[in-house]
Amino acid sequence: MSEVYATRRRRLREQCQASGSAAALISRPANVRYLAGTAPRGAVLLLGKADDVLLCAGPPDDRLAEGRPDDLLRVQTLPGTAGDPAVAAADLAEAGRADTLAVEEHHLTVARHRAIRSVVPRLRLTDLGGVVEQLRVVKDEEEISCLRIGAEIADQALGELLESILVGRTERHLALELERRLVDHGADGPAFPTSVATGPNAGRRGHRPTDRRVEEGDFLSVCLGAAYRGYRCEIGRTFVIGTSPADWQIELYDLVFAAQRAGRENLVPGAACRDVDRAARQVLDSAGHAEGLPPLTGHGVGLEIDEDPLLAPAAMGKLDACVPVTVEPGVHLPGRGGVRIDDTLVVRPEADGGPELLTITTKELLAL
Amino acid sequence: MSEVYATRRRRLREQCQASGSAAALISRPANVRYLAGTAPRGAVLLLGKADDVLLCAGPPDDRLAEGRPDDLLRVQTLPGTAGDPAVAAADLAEAGRADTLAVEEHHLTVARHRAIRSVVPRLRLTDLGGVVEQLRVVKDEEEISCLRIGAEIADQALGELLESILVGRTERHLALELERRLVDHGADGPAFPTSVATGPNAGRRGHRPTDRRVEEGDFLSVCLGAAYRGYRCEIGRTFVIGTSPADWQIELYDLVFAAQRAGRENLVPGAACRDVDRAARQVLDSAGHAEGLPPLTGHGVGLEIDEDPLLAPAAMGKLDACVPVTVEPGVHLPGRGGVRIDDTLVVRPEADGGPELLTITTKELLAL
Repeated sequence: MSEVYATRRRRLREQCQASGSAAALISRPANVRYLAGTAPRGAVLLLGKADDVLLCAGPPDDRLAEGRPDDLLRVQTLPGTAGDPAVAAADLAEAGRADTLAVEEHHLTVARHRAIRSVVPRLRLTDLGGVVEQLRVVKDEEEISCLRIGAEIADQALGELLESILVGRTERHLALELERRLVDHGADGPAFPTSVATGPNAGRRGHRPTDRRVEEGDFLSVCLGAAYRGYRCEIGRTFVIGTSPADWQIELYDLVFAAQRAGRENLVPGAACRDVDRAARQVLDSAGHAEGLPPLTGHGVGLEIDEDPLLAPAAMGKLDACVPVTVEPGVHLPGRGGVRIDDTLVVRPEADGGPELLTITTKELLAL
Repeated sequence: MSEVYATRRRRLREQCQASGSAAALISRPANVRYLAGTAPRGAVLLLGKADDVLLCAGPPDDRLAEGRPDDLLRVQTLPGTAGDPAVAAADLAEAGRADTLAVEEHHLTVARHRAIRSVVPRLRLTDLGGVVEQLRVVKDEEEISCLRIGAEIADQALGELLESILVGRTERHLALELERRLVDHGADGPAFPTSVATGPNAGRRGHRPTDRRVEEGDFLSVCLGAAYRGYRCEIGRTFVIGTSPADWQIELYDLVFAAQRAGRENLVPGAACRDVDRAARQVLDSAGHAEGLPPLTGHGVGLEIDEDPLLAPAAMGKLDACVPVTVEPGVHLPGRGGVRIDDTLVVRPEADGGPELLTITTKELLAL
């Protein structure tokens, strides 16, 4: 695995040098982890002219992190009282005779930027921008395999929940039980706070579980994901509680299902992100649900749950092969509830069978 | 409750105006929540010359947050595609004829700062610094009451765990069970990732639970806390597994207990933070454990688990009444394990009975 990280760092170094920066300072934790294999709290990665250094704040047992740094990386642990590792890294860059240091201006605070400038006033600071985020968009098969395992774990946790009695239990308890099952099946933890929404809450994106109890006739929508070796996937399903769904429930479900299928079917290499969004969105639009639709119908996943690319009306860019994304349209009717259906898929060429569905729990409307 | 937030905002406004800023932009989530009663994801608070506005990103059901904004606050929801609420807030400040805007340079990124400057080039941006964090240090009785309830919940969760069978269970399972019990007893959720450490891991600050199972003869150290209405407390205890602790375990436990008591006894209004730290630290130092001690022996708690003041050798400042802090010295012997004892207390004058202990689980060495 060591070579994977070293290769990623070499690619980044090439990009930096092409744009005139001798050195780069990576501070955003997911980016540090992508390039170093681990991201202890507060750690930063310096890509210097000569060698790469992971600078960690504080003694190691105080700031444990998932993952391990690769063998090709120098690790330097600063005493807990030594201040900001980013400042120490800039100092090191200057000592290594760099004249320019590219920093992540979208992550570094104004105060840290100022501290760096005051310690190394002769070093020219430039903006690295989202270069590492862009490197992260297309995944290798090792990364996809982590997402696939995470998706299996989430499928298992959800499947077990469906076999239990749901009526009378609160959203909060169901969410906790799902999270416990994720860990039981080997997840590092939940990929994001598990959402369980019942009755009038169902179908709300990012609903925080409340003390509302599941009732007969409710829509129940669930959104969860497992983090596995740092990689985060997502699955969302909506069910009906009781023996038979009402007509409006079947109708709404079929509509969202059609929208979600339209989105999935448009996941081909080269497709514009906004076209995938439009495919899903126009199904809901043309049924009169244009208002109140969420701003996106999908997004990339990986070391963070909310990565590039966005599937949204104003999104730029095209999909590549080996990009994992969610497709998650939904409709929420205020006061009545709603439906969301959410899968994680990997974009694959048609020759390879088209998009690879990672979250395989059935999307039939189940009455539980 | 509305008046509480309005009063806090008035105090901040007075401080801003005294330092020459007509308006202030609050972006750090815990600070937004402190001043507005809620902090939806991405929301910022503008303290304008005339009125205060909470600017939220995206439709409300997409970005739910705990708490409610108070009635005296104007809430403005931007469409999800409208970009950064901080930029919109700066625009609003300028429209309200402010010439200066104080921002939180320790939270705002360089990129956002730059975006604000390009949209409102005539507005002078100054640094608000940690003014809101400083306002947050001394708590009112309502805040302390939330911490007290959170501590009761954590005590209950821990107490129940101690009644169950522990040998053979993994650190990860015990941590999950504690978190489930926190929520069962009414917590919003865990205040921070629950730490369960067994055998050679015991006594490590911030240890992440592993798949190691509890064994006879182990030290078991546990650190957990409940979040209740946004307020986060912390309790840590160390136990011995088996019928009777070994001599070295008793000795180490008594030592850490003495250090922790020394820290607690020094919690009086007016005490220098570094003196409280020294009181605890020198007990461990003089027993030969100077090396490897954590950089702090306590810290403030509140809307964040890691607030000012720090109880550390280089800490500045004195304790005031109504400041809740942890006292949490520990010793970890590599390869053997160790002991941490951690309480949350509120600094109170001696006339009121001295420090108020919120986490009341026994600190006797229990053999489980």
